[in-house]
Amino acid sequence: MEQMAEHTVRSYAEELRRLREMIARMGGLAERQVADAVASLVRRDTDLATEVVGRDAAIDALEREVENFCIRILALRQPVGQDLRLVIACLKISHGLERIGDYARNAAKRSIVLAQQPAIGSLNGFNRMAVLVQENLKGAIDALVNDDAARADEVWAADEPVDQVYNGIFREMLTFMMEDPRNITSATHLLFIAKNLERIGDHATNIAETVHYAVSGENLPDDRPKGDGSAYAVIRPPV
Amino acid sequence: MEQMAEHTVRSYAEELRRLREMIARMGGLAERQVADAVASLVRRDTDLATEVVGRDAAIDALEREVENFCIRILALRQPVGQDLRLVIACLKISHGLERIGDYARNAAKRSIVLAQQPAIGSLNGFNRMAVLVQENLKGAIDALVNDDAARADEVWAADEPVDQVYNGIFREMLTFMMEDPRNITSATHLLFIAKNLERIGDHATNIAETVHYAVSGENLPDDRPKGDGSAYAVIRPPV
Repeated sequence: MEQMAEHTVRSYAEELRRLREMIARMGGLAERQVADAVASLVRRDTDLATEVVGRDAAIDALEREVENFCIRILALRQPVGQDLRLVIACLKISHGLERIGDYARNAAKRSIVLAQQPAIGSLNGFNRMAVLVQENLKGAIDALVNDDAARADEVWAADEPVDQVYNGIFREMLTFMMEDPRNITSATHLLFIAKNLERIGDHATNIAETVHYAVSGENLPDDRPKGDGSAYAVIRPPV
Repeated sequence: MEQMAEHTVRSYAEELRRLREMIARMGGLAERQVADAVASLVRRDTDLATEVVGRDAAIDALEREVENFCIRILALRQPVGQDLRLVIACLKISHGLERIGDYARNAAKRSIVLAQQPAIGSLNGFNRMAVLVQENLKGAIDALVNDDAARADEVWAADEPVDQVYNGIFREMLTFMMEDPRNITSATHLLFIAKNLERIGDHATNIAETVHYAVSGENLPDDRPKGDGSAYAVIRPPV
């Protein structure tokens, strides 16, 4: 908020533009956290993982900044209609981005443990999930910045491949555990990292839904394409 | 929103009272979902689990209702100061309660699978976690309804026991997996249920934080007592 005192805010339109910029900055940071968390896992890079853990505070601070700015706009400008929807959307989105940051931090913490354990399996699925959720996150934020409901819809419909990769990893990890009990600690942490990435994907989808509503004033249907059936999965040990 | 047309809203104060009531109702539903999800797990009660899965839509609908009502209040009443903070808090809290509902639904889905698998271990830790997170959830919502910042602070500081029970379950489940590979599917689902309960506890704490801010206008400190070190845990198989 100190920055506001420095260069006087000229107009309401400029405040709304600035709000979008704050979300874009926060989205960029969240994307980078996801990318670096998975890179630290794949490259067994404990220094990078530690950086990710430390950088999470910047996202938390941005969330508070967005919230204070939104409350200020609501109190002083008393927006209605599409402007009001935009402010509410930014509040929700900043909260979603903060959650994404938490999941990335948790993945980074687990990468630190995993770097000290023997490697198991290929981590291609993790790279794939990271690329997919980053694309969706970027798409959702771009949709907000450009008032683009159609772009938001694309992201909203694109979460299924993320769930499919997650399901593959779930089965793979349970198989590793069954093959050798020494894999259990690592496979469990990998399973939680995959779950974190799957939830990051869900949050990106929720952000797209919020953007759609902010831009168009209409809600998307309740039944989004969903591919995660892992809550019902049963894997049997080899006989 | 149809109800609004029926009995005309008399005053702004009444609207804010009604908003609190909607959150209290949503909180009650979320508490019940958590209790029933864990009861269905412990009693291996697939019918109850199926009910929990089906009831989640009611929480989702309430979230949308709260959001629409908040947007209406913001547009028509243009609140400032503590009233504005209350409206923003209710938006955030309804989102948190919706997430809690999702975690309860996910736990119920896994209970359905677990009821078809051989039982492993005692599920006392799950009961304990459910009781603790329900108490915290109830405390956080009561704090909102009664404008009670001190009650919110108590909840905010009370998440550590939840994390401790979670850590115990984490270690227990990994040990079961290592003892017998036939436990791996069940232990993995139980691990995810425990994680769901831990996250529900986190959301209750976040709600308490939001209530504290709404009531007092002050933020709680960043460093909350935290007991979950499981992201760093390494469990070794018996030699």
